[in-house]
Amino acid sequence: MAQSHPVKDSFVNNAWYVAAWDREVTREPMARTYLNQPVTLFRREDGTPVALEDRCCHRHYPLSQSKVEGNNIRCGYHGLLFDAAGVCIEIPGQDRIPHDARVRSYPTVEKYGWVWIWMGDPALADVAKLPNWWWCEHKDWAFTKPDMLYIPCNYQLVTDNLLDVTHLAYVHATSIGTAAITEFPIAVDRSDEHVRMTRWVIDRPAPPMYQTFGQFPGTADRGQIVEFRPPAFTVNFAQVADHGTGAPEGQQGTRRIDLMALSAPTPETETTTHYFFGFVRNFGLEDPKLEQMMAVNFVNVFKEDVGVLTAQQMRMDSMPDAPQIDIRVDIPPNAARRIVNQLRAAERQTPGAVANAAE
Amino acid sequence: MAQSHPVKDSFVNNAWYVAAWDREVTREPMARTYLNQPVTLFRREDGTPVALEDRCCHRHYPLSQSKVEGNNIRCGYHGLLFDAAGVCIEIPGQDRIPHDARVRSYPTVEKYGWVWIWMGDPALADVAKLPNWWWCEHKDWAFTKPDMLYIPCNYQLVTDNLLDVTHLAYVHATSIGTAAITEFPIAVDRSDEHVRMTRWVIDRPAPPMYQTFGQFPGTADRGQIVEFRPPAFTVNFAQVADHGTGAPEGQQGTRRIDLMALSAPTPETETTTHYFFGFVRNFGLEDPKLEQMMAVNFVNVFKEDVGVLTAQQMRMDSMPDAPQIDIRVDIPPNAARRIVNQLRAAERQTPGAVANAAE
Amino acid sequence: MAQSHPVKDSFVNNAWYVAAWDREVTREPMARTYLNQPVTLFRREDGTPVALEDRCCHRHYPLSQSKVEGNNIRCGYHGLLFDAAGVCIEIPGQDRIPHDARVRSYPTVEKYGWVWIWMGDPALADVAKLPNWWWCEHKDWAFTKPDMLYIPCNYQLVTDNLLDVTHLAYVHATSIGTAAITEFPIAVDRSDEHVRMTRWVIDRPAPPMYQTFGQFPGTADRGQIVEFRPPAFTVNFAQVADHGTGAPEGQQGTRRIDLMALSAPTPETETTTHYFFGFVRNFGLEDPKLEQMMAVNFVNVFKEDVGVLTAQQMRMDSMPDAPQIDIRVDIPPNAARRIVNQLRAAERQTPGAVANAAE
Repeated sequence: MAQSHPVKDSFVNNAWYVAAWDREVTREPMARTYLNQPVTLFRREDGTPVALEDRCCHRHYPLSQSKVEGNNIRCGYHGLLFDAAGVCIEIPGQDRIPHDARVRSYPTVEKYGWVWIWMGDPALADVAKLPNWWWCEHKDWAFTKPDMLYIPCNYQLVTDNLLDVTHLAYVHATSIGTAAITEFPIAVDRSDEHVRMTRWVIDRPAPPMYQTFGQFPGTADRGQIVEFRPPAFTVNFAQVADHGTGAPEGQQGTRRIDLMALSAPTPETETTTHYFFGFVRNFGLEDPKLEQMMAVNFVNVFKEDVGVLTAQQMRMDSMPDAPQIDIRVDIPPNAARRIVNQLRAAERQTPGAVANAAE
Repeated sequence: MAQSHPVKDSFVNNAWYVAAWDREVTREPMARTYLNQPVTLFRREDGTPVALEDRCCHRHYPLSQSKVEGNNIRCGYHGLLFDAAGVCIEIPGQDRIPHDARVRSYPTVEKYGWVWIWMGDPALADVAKLPNWWWCEHKDWAFTKPDMLYIPCNYQLVTDNLLDVTHLAYVHATSIGTAAITEFPIAVDRSDEHVRMTRWVIDRPAPPMYQTFGQFPGTADRGQIVEFRPPAFTVNFAQVADHGTGAPEGQQGTRRIDLMALSAPTPETETTTHYFFGFVRNFGLEDPKLEQMMAVNFVNVFKEDVGVLTAQQMRMDSMPDAPQIDIRVDIPPNAARRIVNQLRAAERQTPGAVANAAE
Repeated sequence: MAQSHPVKDSFVNNAWYVAAWDREVTREPMARTYLNQPVTLFRREDGTPVALEDRCCHRHYPLSQSKVEGNNIRCGYHGLLFDAAGVCIEIPGQDRIPHDARVRSYPTVEKYGWVWIWMGDPALADVAKLPNWWWCEHKDWAFTKPDMLYIPCNYQLVTDNLLDVTHLAYVHATSIGTAAITEFPIAVDRSDEHVRMTRWVIDRPAPPMYQTFGQFPGTADRGQIVEFRPPAFTVNFAQVADHGTGAPEGQQGTRRIDLMALSAPTPETETTTHYFFGFVRNFGLEDPKLEQMMAVNFVNVFKEDVGVLTAQQMRMDSMPDAPQIDIRVDIPPNAARRIVNQLRAAERQTPGAVANAAE
């Protein structure tokens, strides 16, 4: 049935988001906005990342245009000095520091090559709530770390895209897509905390890029497993094996290609996204040519989606009240949206949990 | 008496508008917005132009960034296939097509070198409602077809401009204008379906461009007849004859210059216009130098108005509540606006007539 | 205590503002907006500056894109002719001139190298209300006249900046600032018509630029006197003397450096400012190298603030409801804001006084 497209505010506050690649955060303060909130990121002397509201509490000057002094940051306008917790510890020209001379600080954690930020109630920040992407740190896996893609679209459009395999045939026709894939059924399982979509494409030629990687002599069996965890973490798992070697039934050790795309789109605003992603693989770990193919060819596949998502958001913006219909391939993305909506509804019923949010 | 300037929504929906020059519409889908509605245009295999809502009914992807297949168009994101009537006839991954899987289609007709589009109730679209610009197709007339001018102003400002001859002396002083023209009276006749303004400038030098075309040995009698038909069709008829040969009184065969500018400004939004226009003439049909003068010099006269109309709209935007006064030369444009207002009022009283409009 | 930052409309209408440098206003009409009102400026035949509403009363065409004829200006679209008082004195094609065929005219006066404009009730315009900046015209003083700086910030942020000396150490650290200055107390005196802030920095090295100008053999005593008069006139007086020669106590003739920065930021809109400023000095009047240092080095100091003020306004725009705290150095700027607020409140209680304002 036709329905209007999603409401505007779609943010879950009490969650970890990727703030930056670890290589982006230095002793020079940087500026980036998450969930509509401007933040400055820098590192303490011991390297610990710090995330503060990017606005001096005195006269609104961006701290990202200020100077780090030791573990503190000094406003570039009137010289107020803030510690890593956002507390003002020095005001030029006076001894007394008002109790409300502070800026918001955000919990951060460094993990899997990324600096993560918690945008909601700091008391709820828990490292255990990070996604378990252990491959990024395991010696048997190689981790390709492309630069963030900035996409002028709502972050959930990125997740929709990752949870849909139909578009491979249309958007990625010349790289990883084949028309065959829509012939095979999707199995979906879900809980309050995940959506997992599985499809096996049996006895078909491997798409061009996989063929290059895997050198399949005949047809292949290809598994596409996409797993979503809220608010916006998606693992696209691809396994490609010679046809008939039992991979779909769970036979071990038969796969030639075993790789995952890890996605963590972070909302900047309702209509713009910092899209962080990476690839892990358990084959050809030291192969520089293969690494090059991952870092270039595979990244290019992801870049093919940027124009699509940009155009989609552009039209949603120009026709905000237009209805939309659902089709069968929307089952996984719609299930993911339901989880996000439940989290948001729960959060909105616990006012204290988002008390600090500057939404 | 001072009055505030026109209300914002000034569109007549149930009318033909020029959508594009015929040469613009091909087998590659193009995007253009009319009356705030994004449309994609392409041609069927037999060349018939098709106009569809430029938004897939599934997830809003622009069909103009999609692929034409035979007489159909396939969404570039998830592969839904739409026929030329906008009905979805294929959804990858499923057999059943929901009844609301369709996009709006717009009646089109190809005539006078243009593709025309009907933006209102398709049931009311009638080719007989096209303006009768027979000269465009007649062997005794040459038709100059300049590229569309995009003007960031409301389309009615273009019509106002065409129905005013005073500005020739100020805006077009160095091309077709002379100060003399305001000395001669205007005769206006009107009905519910037209406004016609006639002025004869008697015994004056021909303006520079006409002099170049007509090589008048002495002074000339120049007739300016401007005829408006709603919603936005204007014919500026110019006839220039040697003075005293009876042209103003209707004497036939005395004119050296007989040409018309045909104008069809199509609203993109309330403040932007696709201005389509062309020239027909019944002299020097095969003269390449004359054709060049029409296509370059005469087009340049029209381009002189672009900056004027842009500046006018800019100031109307920056001072939306400023009053305005009427003067005598506003009688024809104001009469044209009244016709448009009547049509709009009638349309608004017949809700079904604009039921499909996405305003 | 934390408070939200200033309300949006902060304009005093009944006041003089600098409209332009005298060299900017010529016989060619120019366009500039003051207090949200678009104005065109040009000179009469005798050189008197004229300021008219930049909008023809007929169809809104900007008069700044029109032609000056003698002491009048003729609309570039339909040819209406306005005199220097804004009264329409000719309408092409008709004899009668409607009584409301006029555009607003603004009182102007030329003084101190600037053309000043009165944006409120013309009846209240009084040359005696101009600031008394006699140095600009006195033979014992040199006057450096830099080009206006366009700053995308509210004009009161400029005044705040001028009334604050703390930021010198952070924004101007490499030019005129030293960390020492916040060690010395500020004395503030104020009335309903002024705020004056005085600080003496005793027995310290002169900052780099003053050292270059003054060649102090030892330490210096430096007086910083900043005087504000509404709505936005600030004089930053700097006097630097050899330490111990009695300058702080008012001893005459001991100073090596005696210069003033005169500031007159004129609001364009609520968030953009035409910042006019100049420097007067009573030493080295004929020294071309010194003049060069004023016109380049000193102007560069002022340009250092442009980025700061731009960033501040940007963050105020992106977080309009963010609170702010006051610190001790805000006493003078806050006192200046109170004066402006009082004037505005008084103005708002006298509707006639701003009856013509197009706010």
